[in-house]
Amino acid sequence: MDTLDASYNKLMEKAKAVTILQSTAAIMNWDMETKMPPKGITLRSEQLAMLSGIGHRMATDRQIGDLLDKISDHSDYEALDAIRRRNVYLIRKRYEEQTRLPEKLVTETAKQRAITIETWKKAKASQDFARFKPELVRLLDLRKQAAELLMEVKETPTPYDALIDIYEPNITSEMIAAIFNRLKTGLIAIIEKCQTSKTQPDTSLLQRRVPIAVQRSISKSLAAFIGYDVASESAGGRIDETEHPFTTGYYDDVRITTHYYEDRLTSSIFSVLHEGGHALYEQNLNPDWMYLPIGSECSLGVHESQSRFVENIIGRSRDFWSYFLPTLKEATGTIFSDVDLDSFVLAINQVTPSKIRVEADEVTYCLHVIIRFEIEDALMRDKITVTDLPDVWNQKYQDYLGVEVENNSEGVMQDTHWAGGAIGYFPTYALGNIYSGQLLVAMQRELPDWRRRIAVGEFHHIQEWLVENIHCHGNLYDPTDLITKVTGEGINVQPYLSYLTDKYAAFYGF
Amino acid sequence: MDTLDASYNKLMEKAKAVTILQSTAAIMNWDMETKMPPKGITLRSEQLAMLSGIGHRMATDRQIGDLLDKISDHSDYEALDAIRRRNVYLIRKRYEEQTRLPEKLVTETAKQRAITIETWKKAKASQDFARFKPELVRLLDLRKQAAELLMEVKETPTPYDALIDIYEPNITSEMIAAIFNRLKTGLIAIIEKCQTSKTQPDTSLLQRRVPIAVQRSISKSLAAFIGYDVASESAGGRIDETEHPFTTGYYDDVRITTHYYEDRLTSSIFSVLHEGGHALYEQNLNPDWMYLPIGSECSLGVHESQSRFVENIIGRSRDFWSYFLPTLKEATGTIFSDVDLDSFVLAINQVTPSKIRVEADEVTYCLHVIIRFEIEDALMRDKITVTDLPDVWNQKYQDYLGVEVENNSEGVMQDTHWAGGAIGYFPTYALGNIYSGQLLVAMQRELPDWRRRIAVGEFHHIQEWLVENIHCHGNLYDPTDLITKVTGEGINVQPYLSYLTDKYAAFYGF
Repeated sequence: MDTLDASYNKLMEKAKAVTILQSTAAIMNWDMETKMPPKGITLRSEQLAMLSGIGHRMATDRQIGDLLDKISDHSDYEALDAIRRRNVYLIRKRYEEQTRLPEKLVTETAKQRAITIETWKKAKASQDFARFKPELVRLLDLRKQAAELLMEVKETPTPYDALIDIYEPNITSEMIAAIFNRLKTGLIAIIEKCQTSKTQPDTSLLQRRVPIAVQRSISKSLAAFIGYDVASESAGGRIDETEHPFTTGYYDDVRITTHYYEDRLTSSIFSVLHEGGHALYEQNLNPDWMYLPIGSECSLGVHESQSRFVENIIGRSRDFWSYFLPTLKEATGTIFSDVDLDSFVLAINQVTPSKIRVEADEVTYCLHVIIRFEIEDALMRDKITVTDLPDVWNQKYQDYLGVEVENNSEGVMQDTHWAGGAIGYFPTYALGNIYSGQLLVAMQRELPDWRRRIAVGEFHHIQEWLVENIHCHGNLYDPTDLITKVTGEGINVQPYLSYLTDKYAAFYGF
Repeated sequence: MDTLDASYNKLMEKAKAVTILQSTAAIMNWDMETKMPPKGITLRSEQLAMLSGIGHRMATDRQIGDLLDKISDHSDYEALDAIRRRNVYLIRKRYEEQTRLPEKLVTETAKQRAITIETWKKAKASQDFARFKPELVRLLDLRKQAAELLMEVKETPTPYDALIDIYEPNITSEMIAAIFNRLKTGLIAIIEKCQTSKTQPDTSLLQRRVPIAVQRSISKSLAAFIGYDVASESAGGRIDETEHPFTTGYYDDVRITTHYYEDRLTSSIFSVLHEGGHALYEQNLNPDWMYLPIGSECSLGVHESQSRFVENIIGRSRDFWSYFLPTLKEATGTIFSDVDLDSFVLAINQVTPSKIRVEADEVTYCLHVIIRFEIEDALMRDKITVTDLPDVWNQKYQDYLGVEVENNSEGVMQDTHWAGGAIGYFPTYALGNIYSGQLLVAMQRELPDWRRRIAVGEFHHIQEWLVENIHCHGNLYDPTDLITKVTGEGINVQPYLSYLTDKYAAFYGF
């Protein structure tokens, strides 16, 4: 009979193989989005399907089940240290989830997902929700079936909670609803104050045309500033261009993308800071944990807290721009020579309710997310059906944001998530913002002079703080436990609301 | 019991999986050479090792053996058409070879290969053959063990033939020796005539500095000229930059690389034409055969015949440059405005014996290859040992090319092939050139006006001829059979020698 050590090590070897395979698929996906010749798409879907099949077989390998049993039945099991127990726990969780879903459901869902996304693209282009509807109904039905099954394994209160748990472990829709209700009230109040203020930004200066080559060089400066190395001989990252920016990779090879628009310089600036924030997290996971289950992010919400921290708390602060505006002016010749710091910072912090989530400002953004969460929750509890989606959507946009949605393409069909079957994903975006507010308070305690140091171009102390408090813990804790460990309290919406209130009161003078 | 059809289809599904996996590994290798952040190398070697392991397990899957038995034992086997029989034959061949080698030998060879390449890099950098020697001895010993085992399966006359067969099926060292002896005599005679001629090129014009951006645009023009699409919305290729140019990919996604030197414009021009010739082959395999064993190249020699045909027979012809020199002049401003066609064409066809194979001209090139073949042959027959390599190498360079090799880094250690265990690979380079000469004669019969049409910028009729006669046959025939089918005779060195004699007699006036 194997010793506990031997079984544990075998189990970690199995986990390593899955991780390496997933990191391979990540590169193949990155290539598809950035470099692949257009004609290669059919071959690429074969390649990705094969990798996903191999990955699924590896993760549901019966030997993993046997090893898990051997380990938990072993008399010394309780003596395992916290790290080893967490690794075993994470593998068990994935194994039980993946083996609980019948092969047929997994395959059908994968197929329906592809069909729904294809239909969504066409329906969105032709503003035709009726076309999208039947495919979304089918996919949602499959996701509900999965949710019912996963609920048993995960022991969550509702099926929706079982899906949320995929992205944000051990957070329930009930917890989220309570948090989001407070957030909603707070945000609506701030928005009203901004909108009724006499001070209003002149955002036309942000539309001045800046050559793409210049924007590329600004991206590199920003990456260098935050310590995301894309240039040196030991660089572990790179910046490419795609329609929608994203981050992908693992430890020593983490890549981001951005999109350059000649007349929207800030689009690339803030996407580089946002994705750079994600990249720093992946790159600064504990190197000793590479290939282990704990050598990964804690949750999507915590991931988003890192990107929003860098993008908004740092990147849209007056302090950062008091340092970086001169650099920007120098890089852009005479384009911004007449612009003063306060006008620029007010412009990049304009608060204005809008229809499109990905274009929303910092204050209105979470309302877009809350709307989606409330709709998902109602759908999963069968309080509404897919047929009701447009009306419910449009009413909520009217109620929370005061905007009129004129067609479903800029309404309920704007995002790809539901078309891809990702129910339970949206809430993590707002949770990330909430966490970022809590982290700010914790960081201020330890680095009270962070604003002064940012203003002279120093970011490394903040980066180190994030590494020590978030990145290096990888997936050792569930998100609420990690937030509690770092901030001294569980999820709390108040710090984020206070941060927003203080910041926008100063800008808008309320 | 399964029908013959069912067994055949199952076997093809197995083959498809291996092919898709290999095409995935090709993209991962391409990424490593072109885009990967430097720090990613350790993770990448884990990813590639995993893919290679999975591929090996797939290709040696016992079920393949069972299916092969079922098919060949079936009463209708003899009624299978030629295409199906070839597919079965190719799978059987690979299966028998890969299962013949013990796991231990395969793993040890992979490890020793990595060690030998690492040592070779360092030994080459420090001109230290003694450092390289023991690792090469070990690797060569492992390759000899494999050759002995493969010889039994392949029923080749000698172990060396079993290795050659990996790259050039059904060609023996005895056949190659006979062909190469005739080639050697012919080449040495042409070289002597060129060297003693009063006409000598002025190659200094080729060192004029051309900005890299301009060279990139010339590469795109050349790709467009040969019909290698890297620009349109249905493009199936792309051009990137690496130290050593290469081609990789499969059907609809075939990529080439080149290297730009400001003062060596022709380096990128001819590497783009060379790799473009390889790419056209891969892209124009019969689309109905995608994922089948016959949907691949015939041999490395035939592959090389395509690259050398485009690079040299077309790309270094006076006809091509009478069309393309004006384009080049326009693209490069005033840089070449004083250069006339004859001086330019003579310069790019300079014949001059040298020490480095990859920099050799068209006439001396095959002598470099013949030297390597003769040495491999002697090594594999134990007529010489690794200790003798430098002396034997240097003596042959003196005898055949009249050049003095001053150190082993520019002598026996210049190439990576032996360090990578690729014994039997070199001869395919010269065979490719020989095939290209035979193909030229065959093409001239059907397209007698090809030179006139190239001179007015038309390549498509040549491309179509290559597709119909070579590309679309994929791996349906062994190389000698394919050459015989297209040219009406087996491998014959005379057409290539005649082509060279005619061409260089005109340039050098002998």
